[in-house]
Parts: sequence; structure tokens; C-alpha cells
Amino acid sequence: MAKEKKVEQITDMEVDFAQWFTDVCKKAQLIDYSSIKGVFIYRPYGYAIWENIQGIMDKEFKKVGVENVYMPMLIPESLLQKEKDHVEGFAPECAWVTHGGVEKLEERYAIRPTSETLFCEHFANVLQSHRDLPMKYNQWCSVLRWEKTSPFLRHREFLWQEGHTIHATAEEAKEFTEQMLNVYADFCENVLAMPVTRGQKTEKEKFNGAEATYTIECMMHDRKALQAGTSHYFGDGFAKAFNIEFTDKNNQKTNPHETSWGVSTRLIGGIIMTHGDNNGLVLPPKVAPIQVVVLPIAQHKPGVLEAASELKNRLIAAGLRVKMDDSDNSMGWKCAEYEMKGVPLRVECGPRDLENGQCVLVRRNDGKKTVVNLADLEAAVAEQLELVHKGMFEKAKKNLEDHIYEAHSIEEAKKLQDENGGFVKTMWCGELDCELAMKEKAGMSSRCIPFAQESLGDTCACCGKPASKMIYWGVAY
Amino acid sequence: MAKEKKVEQITDMEVDFAQWFTDVCKKAQLIDYSSIKGVFIYRPYGYAIWENIQGIMDKEFKKVGVENVYMPMLIPESLLQKEKDHVEGFAPECAWVTHGGVEKLEERYAIRPTSETLFCEHFANVLQSHRDLPMKYNQWCSVLRWEKTSPFLRHREFLWQEGHTIHATAEEAKEFTEQMLNVYADFCENVLAMPVTRGQKTEKEKFNGAEATYTIECMMHDRKALQAGTSHYFGDGFAKAFNIEFTDKNNQKTNPHETSWGVSTRLIGGIIMTHGDNNGLVLPPKVAPIQVVVLPIAQHKPGVLEAASELKNRLIAAGLRVKMDDSDNSMGWKCAEYEMKGVPLRVECGPRDLENGQCVLVRRNDGKKTVVNLADLEAAVAEQLELVHKGMFEKAKKNLEDHIYEAHSIEEAKKLQDENGGFVKTMWCGELDCELAMKEKAGMSSRCIPFAQESLGDTCACCGKPASKMIYWGVAY
Repeated sequence: MAKEKKVEQITDMEVDFAQWFTDVCKKAQLIDYSSIKGVFIYRPYGYAIWENIQGIMDKEFKKVGVENVYMPMLIPESLLQKEKDHVEGFAPECAWVTHGGVEKLEERYAIRPTSETLFCEHFANVLQSHRDLPMKYNQWCSVLRWEKTSPFLRHREFLWQEGHTIHATAEEAKEFTEQMLNVYADFCENVLAMPVTRGQKTEKEKFNGAEATYTIECMMHDRKALQAGTSHYFGDGFAKAFNIEFTDKNNQKTNPHETSWGVSTRLIGGIIMTHGDNNGLVLPPKVAPIQVVVLPIAQHKPGVLEAASELKNRLIAAGLRVKMDDSDNSMGWKCAEYEMKGVPLRVECGPRDLENGQCVLVRRNDGKKTVVNLADLEAAVAEQLELVHKGMFEKAKKNLEDHIYEAHSIEEAKKLQDENGGFVKTMWCGELDCELAMKEKAGMSSRCIPFAQESLGDTCACCGKPASKMIYWGVAY
Repeated sequence: MAKEKKVEQITDMEVDFAQWFTDVCKKAQLIDYSSIKGVFIYRPYGYAIWENIQGIMDKEFKKVGVENVYMPMLIPESLLQKEKDHVEGFAPECAWVTHGGVEKLEERYAIRPTSETLFCEHFANVLQSHRDLPMKYNQWCSVLRWEKTSPFLRHREFLWQEGHTIHATAEEAKEFTEQMLNVYADFCENVLAMPVTRGQKTEKEKFNGAEATYTIECMMHDRKALQAGTSHYFGDGFAKAFNIEFTDKNNQKTNPHETSWGVSTRLIGGIIMTHGDNNGLVLPPKVAPIQVVVLPIAQHKPGVLEAASELKNRLIAAGLRVKMDDSDNSMGWKCAEYEMKGVPLRVECGPRDLENGQCVLVRRNDGKKTVVNLADLEAAVAEQLELVHKGMFEKAKKNLEDHIYEAHSIEEAKKLQDENGGFVKTMWCGELDCELAMKEKAGMSSRCIPFAQESLGDTCACCGKPASKMIYWGVAY
């Protein structure tokens, strides 16, 4: 029997969460290992999730005026070095090309770890007048960072999109940075059913070379934090370093203000760890490669297969991604298989159902069965898929909200984290020393300074000095 | 004034075809140069053409059961060396990664020049039974070949798709290789309005490691040949080299038979050189980023802008890609600009037109104007776009058919090529020596042995020995 047909045992998440995660990735055939450590193959079922994410997100980008481009994958070392903070952050993680064919290169090239420097060089080439602004560009590509690895969470090579924009004023650039964070946040919540916390990163945690980094932070099943998307405001720092100039309305040479923003296939890791269970994947209906699986019961009986095919065709005609499994595997095997693969809705139809002009819909997320009239199939399926999304979102939201704890000292924060996981919120004075102390003594990094602030007091939980900011701490992937 | 607004002079193609081509690429803002020689930036207008190609072609792939995946961009040198002919062809053109971060790698990695070896390794990992076959995979990515360069025709890094499939039998694999060539051929003709010649490559010209390579060859304005797409049948050679096996129906271990096939952004070069003219681009309607541009005439007059906006919105609602230009540039400037950008159809509407309940449609390919009733706008525009496609195809087909010449000796072939360019067809004995002689004495490479054979005699034009194959020769990009 083919490997594809075996549903091997998935380790329970309560026993070993990391092993559960790896088992799910492998058994649902999302990824495969390559011969290079930390570099993964995206298999059809895993890549199809990414394609669906791309398709929906790309439309959102285009709605806010973003155009797609493609920049080179190689960055000359001298170009990478033009912005000091940026190169310090990324150079240690670059893979370096030293030879082209048999010839040794005069200068070595980095495979892009991110493309700010390439976009800056291009902007400097093409920007002339304020009439050219804003330029809002994005690219879908892979990047490479030579660091520690884990499937979907930290690949050495991973797929992502990176948006890069330049604007005439700081205000407009800041506003766009926030706008893109909201595009990500809405996408996570409305498409992936992943509730997010929106906020700003601290100085320590912000992107190399940015003036400000905004983030959306999600909470996984194991109550660890996942940074799911970030947007960065650069001011005119890169523009000055790369000599990007335009002639403003008063005919003066001016530097534009810049932003960048990105999400990656890490979102798929987030989906798995937010929604999955001990039976395998639970996929959000809007990005599931198969949204509905049709399973004929007693398919050898006259009329069953024909009826099941018709149901399948009606659902395809309604714009859904549908599969019918009429293989000779047992019904038990099939149910377990599509559960493991996270298919949001199962349609069962057997001779009895058909006699009664009915079929049964079974939701993946909570197992709830609904008997529907065949005449109402399309509407009923659409409704159930919507309920699957809602149910997934509500459950994840409860997990997030139930595990945000309030602390007033490092010791208290540590105790709460050790006992419960989740986010610990405290007041914070803004000093790096306090951030380092929280890391050292409580094992937590700052996740974000939420946009939705609350006042928990007026002194820093770490040093006791006056504090006006509330911050979230957590253990992050 | 912004660079974007200047329509600089494009060199006439009769004066200098290569310069005309570069001028068009630059002035229509398809590409920009990067700081690495031979590596280009795909700007929004150029990349949008590629996105449209991808969108349509990907649907065709999915219709024949192809699934998308993503393989690593790096290939360990030892993996690349597993198939002897393959590595000999590609190793001299590879860019090599020698360092990951600060650490020197134990083995160097090539940036993929093509991914047969990676797919083979993966197939060997996942293939088990005949039930798993066929596996039909494709990826959209960039590849890197360190060779001579030219915009869109030969980039060191270029965007493409590469399909890789394995099949239980040789027959099925061969059939699929032909099927994919036909997918490409139909795409070129029906979507890009580029007529093709379908045929097989000679032993000399086939892909490194393939048993047979099929090709579609197009003819450019300057009557040079462009190889626009290829598909390869590998037999079980790679499968044996990489130890890819499956258990067949008789429970025997067997090697599958393999294919690969690809097209690249070179197709955009083909579009430019097949359809362009001295005013700039002429884009096939199905892939044009802007299919229709709406230009209001005397837009300061009451009602004109509102009416033009309404026309634009109606066409967008009809599913078209539409732009309205209500900038304060002159009508003459606007007409030249969108002609240069190759927009297939221009809609003009001024006060007089609106009074009469009409507007004017102007075709890019032949300048023909049609006055239409506003009520019929959607249908009239759809019809005109169809006529633009047909007109472009017919013109290109005539260029192809008018420039295929028949020869019976190398001298005659050379004279015909020197005087006319185009394809020269001759009989050929099948010997490499004759192919080399044609190259040396007449400057032409073999383009293909067309599937549609004709008998031009029974002796080889090169050596005079018996010959049963007709072959096309030409000067290729």
C-alpha cells in the first residue's frame, strides 16, 4: 500500500507538542525534508495552502494600490553594507555566492535574506518627481537565512512576500505602515480564523534599520507566541543611505519616507498550531486545498456513486474546492484520512440518505453532524463552512483571551508563565535593562506594546520606576 | 517632469533591431538593470505581463492534473553530479554558494539552474506504489545560469515554470511530453497570438540528459528564431541514477519514466519581437496589463469626465483591465504613451461623442477606428479585442509562412538565409557532421524536425546521402 494511504499514529500534543507538530506536517504531506539541513520541500498539499493565502492576500494588496515586481535574488556585498544597522543584523545569516561558473567573482554576493537594499537601489534609479510617489511595490519570492530551523516556523529558505513602499511624507509612510499591519491582522482573523494582538515592537525587537516595527502576535495551542506578520517604518534613513531623492512641489530635492512589510509560510505553521488537534490538521475553510470531501456510503449499491458525483459537481459549480473519494478503502479509513488532512466539511451520502432525499454534513472542527435536504445542498454547505470558520475563530479567541495574565513584578510574571504559559502583561518603563531582566529571570521576550493599552498601575514591573506603557511578554516561536 | 512621463525616441527597428528591442524594454518600463551584470529587475508593467501568463497557464496545467510544489533553490554539488550528461551541461553555468553565514560549507551548493535532480531526490523519497503514479508536479520559480545575457532573452536569473512528472510506463510519459508541448503551443497561439512550429530537437540540440526534446519555435520580426518552450522525455535514465522505484501491479520493483517541461519570461521577449513596432509595444489582449485605456477628450467640458468614468467602470464590471487617464497631459502625449505601452484598445470620448451617444474605439495593432453606440460598449470592446488578437496572429503567421525557404544544398541554404533570414528547410540524413557543417558554413543551427513533415527529396542537403527527415534551420536567439 502506498505511503500516501497510511494514516500513521500522530503523537498526542499533550505528550509532546513539538513532535505532534512535526508528525502533522509529515503525515498530512505538507512538507518533505531536502538533503540540506533546514531547507524543506513544499509538497502539493502544503503548497496549495500557500497558493490560497497568496491568491486572497494579493487581491487585498492590489486594493490598496500595491503593484508586484521581481527583484534579483543576489545582493552584492557592497550594496548590503550601505545601511549599517541593516547589514549588522543580516550579514551573519547570509549564504554567500563566490563563484559564477568556473570564475571566482570579484565581489561575493549574498542570497537575499530580505530585499530592502535592492528596492532602495531601484528606487534611487527610477524616482524623480513627487508625481512618481507613492511607489508601492511587493514581491512574492523565497529568501534565505542561515540560522536554526524548524518546519514552517524557521526555514533556512522560506517563501514570503515583502512589500516596499516610498512616500512623499513621514505621515503618509507611517499611516501606510499601520494600514498594512491592519491588512495582515484582518487577513489572519477573517481568512485564517487566527485572532491577533496588534502592537508595536520595542527598540530591542524591531527590524534592523527600522524606526518602528509593528507586529501581529498570535497564541498557539501550547500558549507560546507566534509573530505572524510585521510592518516597518524606516523614516528617511535608508533613503539617505541609498541617495533616493525626488523633486518636491517646491522644486527642492527631498528624501522620501519608506516602509516594508512581510508575511511568510510561517502562517501555515500558525494555522497548524492554532487549530490542529490530536487527529491532525484543522484547516480554515477559506484556504483549505479541499474544502469539502464527498464520501459515498455503500458505493456498490445502485445509484450511490452517481448521486455522490452529482453532489460533487454541484458543489464545484458553486465555486468550492471539492474532492470525492470513491476508492475501495473503508469508510473508517476515509473519515480518519480527511480528518487528519483537516478538510473542513465531510459530505456523507448512502442509499438510505438518498431515499430520503438527504445527505449528512460533518464539520471537522467540532464533529457536529447536520442532515440536509439535497435540494438545499449549496446553501447548507456554505452555511456550515461559515460556521466552521466562526467556531475555529471563537475557540482560538478564547484560548488567547483566557491566557493573558497580569503581573506587577518579574517574579510574579515568571510564576504565571511557568504555570500557565500565554502572555503576561505588565507596565514597563521603556528601558532595555528591564527587558533584558525579564528575559533573563522569567525567560520571556517582549511580544509587543499593544495598540489597545490598559493601565495596570504606574510603575514598571521590572524596576519600579514610573511607567506609562503596558507591554505583553511571552515565550515565542 | 517625471521619467515615467517622457516618451523618448525609440530607435527604428529597421535601423538597429537590437537597439529597438532594448529601447522598448526600457521605455515601456518593463525592466531595469540591477548592479549585477545580466540580472534584471522586473518592473510592475513587465511583471504584470508575467502574472497574466502565469494565471492563464497555471489553469491549463491544473486541467491536465498538474499540482504545484516548491523545491529548494540550492542543490548540493554531489546531488547535481548524479546524472552524468546533466551535470556536464549545467555545472559550468552554475553560481556556487560556499559559505553559510560565517561558516565555510563542507560541500558547496549550486543555485538551481534547473531542478531535475531535486525532483528526482524527492520522487525517490515519496514514491512507493504504482497507485502513486503518475506524479505531475510543477513549480514557478527563478533559476540562475551564469552565461551571456540580454533582456528577457537570456537573463542570468530568470523566472520560469518547470514541470516534472513520473509515469508507470514509457508510453504514458512520451504521450505526456507531447501533451505538454501542445499545451505550450496552444497557449502561444491562442493567448499570445504567436504562431509556432512544433517539432523535435536533434540529438545535438536536446536537453542535457534527455532521450528526446520537443520544441516550439517562433519567428521574430527580424526573422530570427526564438525557442519559446520545450518538453523533455527522459526515459528511466534519471530514475535509475537516483534510484526512484515503485512496486508495480505484479509486485515487482520498477523504475518510472520521467518528463520535464518549461517556459520562461523569454516569452515576453517573444511577444515584444513578434508584435512590436516602431511606436513601441503591441501587447496581446489576453495578457496585457491594461487591456483598454479610456481617454476623455476636452475633459474640462461639463459631463465628460463623469461619462468617461462611467465607461471605465462598465468595462471593469465586464471583467476587463482598464485604466482611465484624466491627467493634464495633452491628448497627443497620451495617445503616444499608451501606444508605446502596447495597450490593445483605446476608448476616446469627447463632448460631441457623448451628445451623439457614441464613443470611438481605436485598435493598437492596426490603428483602425470604430464608432460605437455607448449602449453596445461591452460587446463592441470584447469584439474589438478579439479582432486585435486575430489581426496580430494573422500578421505574425504571414511573417512566419512567408519566410520559410526550401534548399537542397548548404550553399543554397546560406544564400537564402543571408538574403531573407527566416527558416530554411532541407532534407537531412540525421548525422551530427552535417549539422555542424550547416552551422559552420551557413551560420545556422537546427531549429527542429517538424512534426508536420514534407518530402523535399530523398537526399541530405549537406552530404548528399539518403535522407528521410525534413529539418528546419535558422539563426536563433
